[in-house]
Amino acid sequence: MSVYAERVDRVRTAMDDQGVDVLLLSVGPDLPYLTGYEAMPLERLTMLVLPRDGGATMVVPRLEAPRVVEQPDVFAVLPWNETDDPVALVAGLAKGAGVAAIGDHTWARFLVDLIAALPATTFQRATGVISPIRMRKDPHEIAALRAAGAAADRVAAQLQGGQIRMAGRTEAAVSAELSNRLLAEGHERVNFAIVASGPNGASPHHSASDRVIQPGEVVVCDFGGRLDGYCSDITRTVAVGEPPAEVAEAYAVLLAAQQAAVAAAVVGTPCEEVDAVARRIISDAGYGERFIHRTGHGIGMEEHEDPYIVAGNALALAPGHAFSVEPGIYTPGRWGMRLEDIVVATADGPDPMNRVPHELVVVE
Amino acid sequence: MSVYAERVDRVRTAMDDQGVDVLLLSVGPDLPYLTGYEAMPLERLTMLVLPRDGGATMVVPRLEAPRVVEQPDVFAVLPWNETDDPVALVAGLAKGAGVAAIGDHTWARFLVDLIAALPATTFQRATGVISPIRMRKDPHEIAALRAAGAAADRVAAQLQGGQIRMAGRTEAAVSAELSNRLLAEGHERVNFAIVASGPNGASPHHSASDRVIQPGEVVVCDFGGRLDGYCSDITRTVAVGEPPAEVAEAYAVLLAAQQAAVAAAVVGTPCEEVDAVARRIISDAGYGERFIHRTGHGIGMEEHEDPYIVAGNALALAPGHAFSVEPGIYTPGRWGMRLEDIVVATADGPDPMNRVPHELVVVE
Repeated sequence: MSVYAERVDRVRTAMDDQGVDVLLLSVGPDLPYLTGYEAMPLERLTMLVLPRDGGATMVVPRLEAPRVVEQPDVFAVLPWNETDDPVALVAGLAKGAGVAAIGDHTWARFLVDLIAALPATTFQRATGVISPIRMRKDPHEIAALRAAGAAADRVAAQLQGGQIRMAGRTEAAVSAELSNRLLAEGHERVNFAIVASGPNGASPHHSASDRVIQPGEVVVCDFGGRLDGYCSDITRTVAVGEPPAEVAEAYAVLLAAQQAAVAAAVVGTPCEEVDAVARRIISDAGYGERFIHRTGHGIGMEEHEDPYIVAGNALALAPGHAFSVEPGIYTPGRWGMRLEDIVVATADGPDPMNRVPHELVVVE
Repeated sequence: MSVYAERVDRVRTAMDDQGVDVLLLSVGPDLPYLTGYEAMPLERLTMLVLPRDGGATMVVPRLEAPRVVEQPDVFAVLPWNETDDPVALVAGLAKGAGVAAIGDHTWARFLVDLIAALPATTFQRATGVISPIRMRKDPHEIAALRAAGAAADRVAAQLQGGQIRMAGRTEAAVSAELSNRLLAEGHERVNFAIVASGPNGASPHHSASDRVIQPGEVVVCDFGGRLDGYCSDITRTVAVGEPPAEVAEAYAVLLAAQQAAVAAAVVGTPCEEVDAVARRIISDAGYGERFIHRTGHGIGMEEHEDPYIVAGNALALAPGHAFSVEPGIYTPGRWGMRLEDIVVATADGPDPMNRVPHELVVVE
């Protein structure tokens, strides 16, 4: 039995448990997870119609059909022509379904049309069915995350080793160099390469600008990409020349918080408790107001996916859960710092996918 | 009044006409069209809530808020914190709406949640309200399309001028070179660079493979990107060495069909008639079965948008409509050819954004 057929079996069991009659998947990672095929984000609809019982059908534009690698034990292919109505085809296949679960990233225009075409059907998120399965990475997936993490680590090591000059260059130039290095180390694409220097570091989602990096500043470098279908994501903050004392003091707190949160990420611990461990250490040191985001996000085929390491998420960590642990401290107008590893929860404890030094390394 | 405020005014008039009480926009081009702000495709919801009457609100994750350039005459900013429920915030702002129009590209997960939070509201596509407005490009937008087209033309001229070697190289290598040249000519990003040689040319959406291009083959090169927010898209087919007679004969038909369809693209002509003009010429020459896709798609902030040049689309062309005219002839297992320009309908007739030669140029 193929890996796809096994996953579909588990999904069908979840559909049974949750009373879902049909699963409808389009763009996004759920479709390649179950079929190996990634739909293009197009106005021409691609949709897998997977009923709880009976065969599944991949409705696909005829132009795209040659790209589909058939998996006869998982789905049949139904190509549609330029003047066909793909929503009507999907509705015909899903007819009679009381409850349909629709893929999270499906474009709303198709859901609006499907609701009109299937007035007796209730729609819910496919996440409820698939996410608990996708969250539990199998050994092959963990190996893929480890390979992606090792590739990102090689770039981080080049950064910490001073091979990427910082002072006097723009954030954008450093970002482009990080991107090129991610590709050179084997990533098939770059997802992001944040370079946030000086006061820009205080905005956690600052990307990269034409600002020139100055000696004496700290620079948040947060970068990752996709390698063999799985994502990397690492943050290291570097100091350009010796950092001021207040920065070094805050970084010591950040390092302690991050390491404690990684150590807390053991099977059975609620996600919110991992967040709380990092937050308590940062708050106790007086920086609580400056840690303005959740501690982490799940990672896999997506950069951000379940489970989220955030207050209010009582989900207990289980073997195979993969996620970031990335607390930060941000001082508006002056500086920011963040430290991030990807970690997999295992029966033997937290297994980090990133292993380069965690200290505040001084570069030029 | 800013360009955004003017557009919002026109949208509100359309909402009035169509009985839409609130417009809800997230990822995709509608949001930057109306506000200048492009939402990140994130699990953290960004959504503009634009009621028919009263002020509009941009609900945005606090982490992203620093990226929002405020437009006080268009919207207020409402940042939400990591543990807030953004769907509840949107539902509160949209409360009482009988009809909501939701952005086409919004993730289905958010629409599912909004339907649950607003049980008395009917949802329809935002396209009905915005697309007729976005279709009519203003002079500034046409200038942006012209600049993008000129940049793509420079790459096409390099291709036709023999500066990009074909024979003996892989499709992937040529595709990478086209991509680099698109960036070098000013595109901010590459959307696609299809290189389909020999038999691969017969699959219109073939991307680029490790296949080595051989002398005597024809190669479909279809590429484009985004420049200052607007898209380019051009196809030129080149012959690697003198083409066989059957290829040259078919190309003469394709050229005649494409030029006739461009000439037919005058204000008042239905979109389907532009398609029919190209199709009749290709069919009359005996290739009708081998022209397996629509003649074109609209273009602007999106690579593919309204209006579609396809059978069944009775929409009459209006000044400012921008679209591709790209018939093709495909012989499975042997070769394919396609010829594409972007054209803007104007009161003075069709205005092509691409002006490099249309002939089958022989390269090496």
